[in-house]
Amino acid sequence: MKPLMQLKKYSAELVDLHHTLALMQWDQEVRMPRRASEGRAGQFATLSGLVHRREVAPELGALLAEAERQKEGLSVEDSALLRVMRRSYEQNVRLPEDFVAEFSRLTSQAQMSWLEAREQSEFAIFQPLLERLVVMARQQAEYLGYTDHPYDALLDLHEEGLSTDQVAGMFAELQAPLVALVKKFSGRLAPLSFTAPFSLTGQEQFAEHLLVAMGFDFSRGCLARSAHPFSSTLGHHDRRITNRYAPKSLDFIFGALHEGGHALYEQGIDERLAHSHLDDGVSLGIHESQSRFWENVVGRGRPFWQRFFPELQQAFPAQFAQTGLDDFVRGINAVTPGLIRVDADEVTYNLHVLIRFEIEKGLIEGSMEVADLPRVWREKYRQYLGVEVESDADGVLQDIHWAHGSFGYFPTYTIGNLASAQIWEAYKQYDPGFKQTLGVGNLAKVREWLVREIHGHGSVYLPEELLVRVTGAPLSAQPFLAYLEEKFSRLVD
Amino acid sequence: MKPLMQLKKYSAELVDLHHTLALMQWDQEVRMPRRASEGRAGQFATLSGLVHRREVAPELGALLAEAERQKEGLSVEDSALLRVMRRSYEQNVRLPEDFVAEFSRLTSQAQMSWLEAREQSEFAIFQPLLERLVVMARQQAEYLGYTDHPYDALLDLHEEGLSTDQVAGMFAELQAPLVALVKKFSGRLAPLSFTAPFSLTGQEQFAEHLLVAMGFDFSRGCLARSAHPFSSTLGHHDRRITNRYAPKSLDFIFGALHEGGHALYEQGIDERLAHSHLDDGVSLGIHESQSRFWENVVGRGRPFWQRFFPELQQAFPAQFAQTGLDDFVRGINAVTPGLIRVDADEVTYNLHVLIRFEIEKGLIEGSMEVADLPRVWREKYRQYLGVEVESDADGVLQDIHWAHGSFGYFPTYTIGNLASAQIWEAYKQYDPGFKQTLGVGNLAKVREWLVREIHGHGSVYLPEELLVRVTGAPLSAQPFLAYLEEKFSRLVD
Repeated sequence: MKPLMQLKKYSAELVDLHHTLALMQWDQEVRMPRRASEGRAGQFATLSGLVHRREVAPELGALLAEAERQKEGLSVEDSALLRVMRRSYEQNVRLPEDFVAEFSRLTSQAQMSWLEAREQSEFAIFQPLLERLVVMARQQAEYLGYTDHPYDALLDLHEEGLSTDQVAGMFAELQAPLVALVKKFSGRLAPLSFTAPFSLTGQEQFAEHLLVAMGFDFSRGCLARSAHPFSSTLGHHDRRITNRYAPKSLDFIFGALHEGGHALYEQGIDERLAHSHLDDGVSLGIHESQSRFWENVVGRGRPFWQRFFPELQQAFPAQFAQTGLDDFVRGINAVTPGLIRVDADEVTYNLHVLIRFEIEKGLIEGSMEVADLPRVWREKYRQYLGVEVESDADGVLQDIHWAHGSFGYFPTYTIGNLASAQIWEAYKQYDPGFKQTLGVGNLAKVREWLVREIHGHGSVYLPEELLVRVTGAPLSAQPFLAYLEEKFSRLVD
Repeated sequence: MKPLMQLKKYSAELVDLHHTLALMQWDQEVRMPRRASEGRAGQFATLSGLVHRREVAPELGALLAEAERQKEGLSVEDSALLRVMRRSYEQNVRLPEDFVAEFSRLTSQAQMSWLEAREQSEFAIFQPLLERLVVMARQQAEYLGYTDHPYDALLDLHEEGLSTDQVAGMFAELQAPLVALVKKFSGRLAPLSFTAPFSLTGQEQFAEHLLVAMGFDFSRGCLARSAHPFSSTLGHHDRRITNRYAPKSLDFIFGALHEGGHALYEQGIDERLAHSHLDDGVSLGIHESQSRFWENVVGRGRPFWQRFFPELQQAFPAQFAQTGLDDFVRGINAVTPGLIRVDADEVTYNLHVLIRFEIEKGLIEGSMEVADLPRVWREKYRQYLGVEVESDADGVLQDIHWAHGSFGYFPTYTIGNLASAQIWEAYKQYDPGFKQTLGVGNLAKVREWLVREIHGHGSVYLPEELLVRVTGAPLSAQPFLAYLEEKFSRLVD
């Protein structure tokens, strides 16, 4: 067998095993009995260990090197496969096995400590663990290697090629205009509130209805309940999502659209990439652009609700019989500076991310101390969002990412938001009648364009390369700022 | 590390991986999207291959041999672990990898062919595959080795130490008395039938209620829906069951009691055996004794329904408001010779198994031809059960076992039935007030005895050894025959 063929076989096996690990996590969130968690952690560790050994095997290194020597005349896909496997191989071999094991133990402990700290709203409980996590994250950056800034190495883990400078530049472009937009639109749109509860099955049915309308293929995926919505890939024809249902919230709609956006991306990947390292969204940022596209750009727009609001009214008359379409659309777009990132509206959201970026950068380069975080958090929320943080639980302890050992993840949320607006620009050029398209609920037209332009390619193109192919330009804050200005000006009119 | 300690570590890892495989199968039956099946088969093959390589690794063989050299002074559990791991190792290494792969390919094909044949009720479709399966099963027996009869090797796969002679002896003891009992009780008890459908959620709730009453621990297991009920172990604290719900059948009750019986066995295994090859029911026969104990011995008895029938009436008034307890108990015990094994009552059931045993023995020893099976099937059903087989679908094609490549499995059903009655004798000696115990629904008393006598031991004792410990005697047909005679005489009275 030629090295490339052997490599493809190796890739397929690793992909199978990663999908098996994904199944273990899916089941853990969706179905596993309560007392099974410790046993499952052990099973997960056993299989991950086995997978890791295959990922750092000298055999794989040799195969890669051989295949790379015969690069000429390779198809775009085969070159991409070499690139993606090389990248993954380097990330794996650079981290010593002992380090990986210790990091994994530490993050298990940290998650428990974080839960307790959040419950008691007491940062001091989590602080010693976070201190150790920061030390290990710095060590991780050293192992992975970087040219300019240690944080570069961590950013690159989540978004290939992303640098601290780029992120800083992105936020420099965003910060002042966002603060101005918050001031301009804050409190101008009346939020919705409900006295009658939404029935759980009613919510689930409506979420399913929207997913079908988006084109989510239930023969290749499913929708389940979990404490926190997520999407997960368990196979080329197995892309699943979860949602949650609270009695008096519209989260069931935006959760479904968000996770549905992730799942459409995965379901749209071309079958010829199945069973390989290319059968995956290319980066967290591009992935988030797809979830935000459906959740916000499409799903908080008036044209979409022109089509679906009458159905929502019919499904939940007690809540919506007296509400007009315009009041509804204004309500779901209310701009209100708040404390919690995941509840933030489109205008304030990226300021939450900016704060986390500044803190992570500071921690990793050593210009900030873990012990100072509660104070720093309060100051930054006051400065950027004008809100007072009353408790650690609603402040520095609100996100689980650091307890997971993830530093460098947050900026991908903002990349997703910016990219979603930039992609929307490109879609509107393709379909100038977009208002009509959405107004009649022809979501298939939108989805098919996304599949052709983005989804189908899986991980073949680098994130930036893909964005240039689709939109003609690299990532920029301008389309997003223009989108906010235009949308919210019209809404408050 | 001492060889025994290393072996325990090896065992724990293999158990983790087998539980992961069990998760893949569970998910496949319960939740997996339709089009994912081919991909899942590939994932399963990848992980099974990996597990198989660890199971036949020379490293394991060497560890075992070393540990066996230091056998003196070992605890009962440690000796048992050596025995179980040696047995599993021998079964694995004796089958060449090519053979295992080909057998697995053939059974995949055979299952599809069997489905089609059954749908069209046309044995000829399945015949060529079954012929190849029989050839491979004979080959399997040769690889595994045997002293007297090749079928011994296949029986032993499912029930350690079981021989063709023993099974023939068991059926020789059973056959004439069973045929007589069928004649005596057939048609004497009026079956139940329903015009109003049972609501699906009502069925599920009642099934859950019974499981809670039995002592099924929902923090260490769960109940889901699937096309065919089954029970599965995914971890020491993760023992799951499924059930199915048809609109006009009581299968939801007996399915729950049956699978609940399997699950109680697994949930009752002592924690000190967790994460090892001993953390498992000891054999299919003993496992079936537990499911049949709850489904039939307890669950079709009058004392049990004295407690639960009023609740059943309350849950389903349309079906039971006009039915008395005695009519209900007679109805769920109606003796009716029929064509389908899984629908058979307690009196006729083992004659179905006898027919399969005679056929399997004939096929494996070469005294019977696959091509003759439809004719043989018709003759035996006429002879033993007095019924006319009208179609292959309701005849020779009704069970999936052979398509799975399983020969030697069926006799364990009868072993389970016999053992359940023998265990019941022992329980009645322990608790002479058993009618009162069940009549007030004190199922905990029964379960605790089972845990102490059977469940807790996992695979520490050999099946026969365990039965002697619990009942004072090896497996015998007499307690079962006496149980039938006594129970049904009273019912028709």
